[in-house]
This record gives sequence, structure tokens and C-alpha cells, in this order.
Amino acid sequence: MAFILEICAGSVASCIAAQKGGADRIELCDNLLEGGTTPSYGTIALAREKTSIKLYPIIRPRGGDFLYSDLEFDTMIKDIQLCKQLGCDGVVIGILTPDGKVDKERCKVLVTLAAPMKVTFHRAFDMTDNPFEALEDIISLGFERILTSGGRNTALEGASTLRQLVNSANDRIAVMAGSGVRSSNIAQLIKETGITEYHTSAKSYEDSKMVYRHPNVSMGGIPGVPEYGISQTREKEVALIREIGEKTLLS
Amino acid sequence: MAFILEICAGSVASCIAAQKGGADRIELCDNLLEGGTTPSYGTIALAREKTSIKLYPIIRPRGGDFLYSDLEFDTMIKDIQLCKQLGCDGVVIGILTPDGKVDKERCKVLVTLAAPMKVTFHRAFDMTDNPFEALEDIISLGFERILTSGGRNTALEGASTLRQLVNSANDRIAVMAGSGVRSSNIAQLIKETGITEYHTSAKSYEDSKMVYRHPNVSMGGIPGVPEYGISQTREKEVALIREIGEKTLLS
Repeated sequence: MAFILEICAGSVASCIAAQKGGADRIELCDNLLEGGTTPSYGTIALAREKTSIKLYPIIRPRGGDFLYSDLEFDTMIKDIQLCKQLGCDGVVIGILTPDGKVDKERCKVLVTLAAPMKVTFHRAFDMTDNPFEALEDIISLGFERILTSGGRNTALEGASTLRQLVNSANDRIAVMAGSGVRSSNIAQLIKETGITEYHTSAKSYEDSKMVYRHPNVSMGGIPGVPEYGISQTREKEVALIREIGEKTLLS
Repeated sequence: MAFILEICAGSVASCIAAQKGGADRIELCDNLLEGGTTPSYGTIALAREKTSIKLYPIIRPRGGDFLYSDLEFDTMIKDIQLCKQLGCDGVVIGILTPDGKVDKERCKVLVTLAAPMKVTFHRAFDMTDNPFEALEDIISLGFERILTSGGRNTALEGASTLRQLVNSANDRIAVMAGSGVRSSNIAQLIKETGITEYHTSAKSYEDSKMVYRHPNVSMGGIPGVPEYGISQTREKEVALIREIGEKTLLS
């Protein structure tokens, strides 16, 4: 069985690092701090120009929950149309109803609109009230895959649910594990879940090249996020995850 | 003198609230948690369709500092071209050099490219090593205005510098005060700074309409940001700031 690696990239530079490191696919996002929102036109267009591996922008109009207004749904429609125009291979979406089910009606509209692009259902899956029911809904809607951490904050914490999900899916849909995936735990994840497809940002913060740093102003002001740090996918970490993943599958 | 009010909007719904509340202009952003990054194509296009007041998307490829790679600069160029195509009135940018000066060369390229759209220089201004030197550079480059908090975290804290900046500008460029501007302090800000143009998101969190809420998963995981809250500009707060601003200028 092949090891498949998707990199969650927050910039064009991260897309290039993903490709150089040997990733199979890019999920392109803005605003990784909130779990990813729809990237700008310029980011998608330049990422497409600079990489040749599969490119799947996330289509998520804001952070927070996955229950969207009509305006937000219309925004998603426009962004999917753009991705198609720009030659993307797929998009990544997820819409829920207030009671924690997959919004089948709206998802159907978007999956149909996106074709021939493929569609991944993202971690909104982990916010559903019943992942096994959600799995069946998502299969019936024609999604290509589900990104999930097994209903927990990290894939490692959700490992037992992930194993059950991949068994229930029984090759009817791809199940990709994500959240907290690193070179340090990929072997353990493969062994505990049986999953062969993984999603990770493989990133770290790089210190800013600014020499002058204003002592009195903080722009973002988010605890734990460095004001003078650039979040960036690391080519070496991508390559290492791939290497360990392939080795583990062969053993 | 006229009171001018710009609303920093993080969604199409916030743009509509801004217009209904009587704002003069919208600065459209994604990712307000990091101070705003470039919104998606769909967000800009729908905001333009749904509002008729002046629309200025921010062109900022990521959070953090304002020193950009060539790839980031190329992304900004593409996004500015898109804004022009979509009928935006202006864009909002800011690029610095490593030593904390305005990057005159790159800003000149973007101001020229943006024409006939107008260009605001955003709070990267507050990260420069010398705001009075930066003011002269920005005037010479043909920017329409500067958004500043007077080199402090909030406009109230930076009030004395704001007063000096508006005096130095001497009507050669608009100086707009922003950061922490509210209906509760707008009168004080006008009196302390003499500034008549203001920038605020006028937002609050609205509770999510999700009935089912997963007990074990946090998606964003940012301290202080509600998982089940939607940040939204409030029409009433916009109208109140405008009312108090106009009254204060008349008194």
C-alpha cells in the first residue's frame, strides 16, 4: 500500500517546500491559526504556477463553527469557481447543520459545482455528533476523502476511532489522518490506526529578518504566536515524514 | 470638517452592517486575529456586489512582520490586479525594510500598479523606527492616507503622537486613527488628537447557532477566542460612533 502525504501550506513558499520534500498533495490555506480559511486569489494563482503536485485550496469563509449563512455559502461558491478557473485539482470543504450532522443539501451543491475537481471533507467531520453516520453521508455525497483526527484534538488521541473509521469506510472513501502529525509520531500512527494517508503542516517558526523591532507595538497580540516569526513548512520535515511512513508500511 | 469613518470588516456580512450603519469606507480583511490578511476572491467579489460605499481590501499575504519575500511580493501584485478588476476603490498595504524604514522601491511599484485605485498605508507605519520620516516617505510615494495608532498598541495610548503626526502632515495626506477605537472613546480621541478620520471594526462576538457542540474538539485553540462565536461588525455601534463623532466635531 502506498504512503500518501498531504501538506497543509499557509503560503506559496510552503507549497514549494512541500513539493521539494516529496509531498503528494497540498492543502492551501490562509490563517492557519484558526485552522485555515480560504486563501487569496494571488496565493492560489501563484501556488499553481510554482508547483505541479495536486493543489487543493480550503474553501472556508471564516474560523469558528461550520454552520454558514447564505452570504457565506455564496462566498464559498464564488471561491470554488475561482479554484476551477485557476486549474486546482480539488477543494476542501465542510458544512454542518445546527444539530451536528453533515449538511447534505449544501454539500451536494458544492461537490457538483466543483467537478471535475475532487472534494475533501475537512475536520468539520470531527465536530459532528456521530462520525460513523457522517462517514456514510459523506460517501453518499461523492466526496473523495475525509480529513479527520478521530473526533479528538490530535490524530494520536483519536487513534482508536481512526482505526474504526478506516474499517467502516472499507475502501469506499479515503480516510486521511491529520492534526498533530509529525515525523516523531508517524510510525506510531500508522501502527495504531492502519491509515496510510496523512495530513500535516510540517511547519515551524523562523525568526523574522527584521533588524529594527518596535518595542512598544504588538500587531497581532495573540498569546504564543511570535510577533517576529514566520510560520513555514520545512522541506526536511516533509521528506522525513515520507521516509518514515514508507519504511513503516514496508516493515 | 467632516467626520470620516472606515470600518475594518472581516466578512461580507460585516461590510453590509458597515454600510447600513453609515460608514464611509470598508477595509476588507480575512484573519482579523492577526491584524488582517488578504481576503479571498469570493469575499471581495461578493462584498463589491452587496455594497456601494468605498471598498479597500487589505493586501497582506500573512501575519507577522512587514518584510516580504519575492514570492510574497508577487502574491501582492496579483491580488492588487484582482482588486482592480473587481471594481474596488482602493487597497491597503505596507512594506518595510529590515531597518524599519518604508520600502520606497516596492511601495512605488504597488502604488503605480494600483492606480486608479487609491492606496492606504496601514499600521506597518507603527512598526517603523521614525514615524515622522516614514510620514514624509509615504507622502512622497503618492499614498492617499496613513492608518496609525501613533506608534502604540491603541490610538488612545498613541494620542500625543497622533496629534503631532496630523500637524506634520498639514493636509498633505490623510491621517486616520485606528486600533481600539470605540463609541466609548471616540469623543476623547477627537479632542486629544484633532483627527477627524477613524478606523474601527465596531465588532463583537455573536454566539454560534450550533445546537450540537462537540465536547472534545477545539478547532482553532486560540486562548480568548470563542470556538463557537462569530465575530461581526455591529450596525448600531457603527451608527453610534458616527453620531458621537459628528456631534463632537460640531461642538
